Amino acid sequence: MRSIIYILGWILLIVAVMMAMPMAVAAIYMETEGLAFLGTAALSAILGFILIKTRPETIRFQAKEGLACTALGWIVMSIIGAVPLTVSGEIPSYLDAVFETVSGFTTTGASILPNVELMTKTTNMWRCFTHWIGGMGILVFLLAVLPLVGGTNMQLMKAESPGPSVGKLVPKVRFTAQLLYMLYIALTVLMILMLLIGRMPLYDAMCTAFGTAGTGGFGIYADSCASFSPYVQWVITVFMILFGVNFNVYYLLFLRQFRAAAKCEEMRWYLGIIVVAALLIYRSTASMYGSIEEGLRTSFFQVGTIITTTGFSTVDFNLWPTFSKIIILMLMFVGACAGSTGGGLKVSRIAIAGKSFFTYIGSFLHPRAVRKVKFEGKEVEMDTLKAIFVYFVGVMLIVVLSILIVSLDNFDLETTVSAVAATFNNIGPGFGAAGPAACYADFSPISKLVMIFDMLAGRLEVFPLVLLLTPRFWRELVSEYRSRRMRISRSFIDGEPKSQR
Amino acid sequence: MRSIIYILGWILLIVAVMMAMPMAVAAIYMETEGLAFLGTAALSAILGFILIKTRPETIRFQAKEGLACTALGWIVMSIIGAVPLTVSGEIPSYLDAVFETVSGFTTTGASILPNVELMTKTTNMWRCFTHWIGGMGILVFLLAVLPLVGGTNMQLMKAESPGPSVGKLVPKVRFTAQLLYMLYIALTVLMILMLLIGRMPLYDAMCTAFGTAGTGGFGIYADSCASFSPYVQWVITVFMILFGVNFNVYYLLFLRQFRAAAKCEEMRWYLGIIVVAALLIYRSTASMYGSIEEGLRTSFFQVGTIITTTGFSTVDFNLWPTFSKIIILMLMFVGACAGSTGGGLKVSRIAIAGKSFFTYIGSFLHPRAVRKVKFEGKEVEMDTLKAIFVYFVGVMLIVVLSILIVSLDNFDLETTVSAVAATFNNIGPGFGAAGPAACYADFSPISKLVMIFDMLAGRLEVFPLVLLLTPRFWRELVSEYRSRRMRISRSFIDGEPKSQR
Repeated sequence: MRSIIYILGWILLIVAVMMAMPMAVAAIYMETEGLAFLGTAALSAILGFILIKTRPETIRFQAKEGLACTALGWIVMSIIGAVPLTVSGEIPSYLDAVFETVSGFTTTGASILPNVELMTKTTNMWRCFTHWIGGMGILVFLLAVLPLVGGTNMQLMKAESPGPSVGKLVPKVRFTAQLLYMLYIALTVLMILMLLIGRMPLYDAMCTAFGTAGTGGFGIYADSCASFSPYVQWVITVFMILFGVNFNVYYLLFLRQFRAAAKCEEMRWYLGIIVVAALLIYRSTASMYGSIEEGLRTSFFQVGTIITTTGFSTVDFNLWPTFSKIIILMLMFVGACAGSTGGGLKVSRIAIAGKSFFTYIGSFLHPRAVRKVKFEGKEVEMDTLKAIFVYFVGVMLIVVLSILIVSLDNFDLETTVSAVAATFNNIGPGFGAAGPAACYADFSPISKLVMIFDMLAGRLEVFPLVLLLTPRFWRELVSEYRSRRMRISRSFIDGEPKSQR
Repeated sequence: MRSIIYILGWILLIVAVMMAMPMAVAAIYMETEGLAFLGTAALSAILGFILIKTRPETIRFQAKEGLACTALGWIVMSIIGAVPLTVSGEIPSYLDAVFETVSGFTTTGASILPNVELMTKTTNMWRCFTHWIGGMGILVFLLAVLPLVGGTNMQLMKAESPGPSVGKLVPKVRFTAQLLYMLYIALTVLMILMLLIGRMPLYDAMCTAFGTAGTGGFGIYADSCASFSPYVQWVITVFMILFGVNFNVYYLLFLRQFRAAAKCEEMRWYLGIIVVAALLIYRSTASMYGSIEEGLRTSFFQVGTIITTTGFSTVDFNLWPTFSKIIILMLMFVGACAGSTGGGLKVSRIAIAGKSFFTYIGSFLHPRAVRKVKFEGKEVEMDTLKAIFVYFVGVMLIVVLSILIVSLDNFDLETTVSAVAATFNNIGPGFGAAGPAACYADFSPISKLVMIFDMLAGRLEVFPLVLLLTPRFWRELVSEYRSRRMRISRSFIDGEPKSQR
């Protein structure tokens, strides 16, 4: 319990530091909205310092605490991160501001703003920068900078990193976290440089790169990426796809193990799906576009943006034929690779599930041969299969309940289902009234709350958020706290000094 | 291989006998269309007699042959069953006739007929009677009447009976099959009597009861059940729900074990879902109907028809608010109980899946306590969980691929998705252009073929049909056949008499 409070303190401090980015923009462009960020950062820093004063002697995390800490951490940073948006008056409704901030941190990119071009540069930088922070994860950042002792911190990383198995690159958690951020920063800087070569202004290039790196999708223009030059659109397409690759691959490249990197089975499935989907969509939509290049660019851009769950757009895919729309809808659920910044079910989960089906069919043909599902050259453990199954069930439960509640707003079926799919899978735009050309402002407050939950549940992969909803978790927390207080008061009676316990 | 051909011969014979029903109707109402049935029945009988002449000395079924035999049996009976519809000229396109017949046998109830009232009484009786035959299953019937020796015949029953585990009531397969048909006939007769009390003509009562018993949904009126009296609609509602209950419950009632029957967990979930869904829909649609009774009747009728995958209707639920439509869409996938005549994923699979999710969450709270999922008072084996997982994956694969192909017809998203959902889950009507007020005639031949596959795959629970699609299955069949021929020709050379082998 005290470990969780301690970590929450550090998260508040980091959010305060991160707000330096919009403040710098405010200083350069002389926008008074920066003061809202300054005030919030100060408040957040003070709160943070108070909380880290409670540092317990040992910081220990069981799976339960790891999950709870991650969920609470993300809720706290969203609540704080939304404050300057309302204080500055740019998003008057605080609920809308929280929606926008959660959408930012979870790299969803679903916006309640009808026209982002009316926002100040300060606010837009913060919106895009939240994507970058949330993409790799704030706890991973914390683990990289904070010398926490003990292997139990793995629980924090486990809870925040997406995918069916843990992506520990090197034995030490701290080095893994540092390595991940190093690769993340390097790729982001590379992308900014490529965009600058395309003559994009530095501010635009930074915002776009942050949105791409986190696979977020907040844009700074009302038409998202439609007015960018073909070169810039291709650069964005390539980097979206790159940020959807399992970061293990980049680590292997960094170690110059090119062969091992190229062998990554999840990456091969992922790239295969992208190419097939884009070519199918190209075939189905080619007649709508002027040239082969434009058709291919449009297809690859939209496939890249949806499978990586980024959510940028260059066209409104609501106008496409049903076949292409169905492909887009399916890609929404597929998602990117595990261990990337993308969301969705993740390619590895889907590949393993598909393989287990065909292995099962094979077992009818040869009942005596024991056949195991293999992935990345290794046998898939029964525990992993079970975890994937339970994950699918959890996703279905949350999606179904969310759709039921959101359907009370009485939008049409397409809008209702795709709005939930697009927020849960951290994509952003859906179909119909939630399409790329629309915004989420018209949903009721209850629907917005549900989608806030969905975005967090999608980003943190179900379990942390669901745990916070179980009454048993809170009951146990309370009873733990009570028994600790009893022990303390008893030790007083016994005359034992507190520090010796 | 020869065992399969032998069983197919019997299936042809049974279909021939079953055609006596429409022939009798033709005789009574003096309709010449009966001749088409007479001719087809004769042809089917002759073919059947030829095939059963190949009777092998021992009839043995491994899981593989059991699945293949079931799939082939259903394909053969659909191909034969469709012939009279085209020969009589009532459904000129043979593909449409096969669609209609598969829809009948699989108890789907999706029709390509714009107006069923234009059909002869003979044809309509056959359409409804196919539901009744397909509901409990033709192989189960075969097992009931045919004294096949050996426990391996369980494979046939396993392949045709729906649900995650096998519903063997008594140790002997044959008695189980007889018992099931006895209960099935008793319930059907009871329903006919109840309808006659409501002053329904005998022909109408029989057709309606056959459609209800099989949870099929073909009607004999253009407006399905809308013009029936409230009493008749309530009778149909109650019997639809009754036929969706696991038949184990009726067996227990038959043995007067009332307590054990009432304890059936799957039935409790099933009835619970029905009541909650109907009340939610009532709340959402009450203002559309004149009285409380009408509102409740409409809600319970539509919930019953969809969850049991029957497909009758009294209203067009396309006109309902989105919230109610979403509930209907979800019920389409839930389906009825295992071991009933209904389709869908089955309540037990969904209940077990949901329970494993919450057990998994519980394991985070108490990592040391070993927790197992329990259902019907017993621990769920890991193998059952795996089978359910693989089944879900298979369903998703087939549904996704089917939607992709059907989407090429460029109907809207709602129509495309719900047409596949409604055929795969053996319901019948979907949303949009596939709704209760529409028909399936406008889909392209390729889409119709896909949906024929989906109806069969849904009724036979995925594996039999998928097995027929694997090239390996056919390769092995061919190589088995070759090695047998080689053995025979070698035994000729060796001078061994054939019969001694």
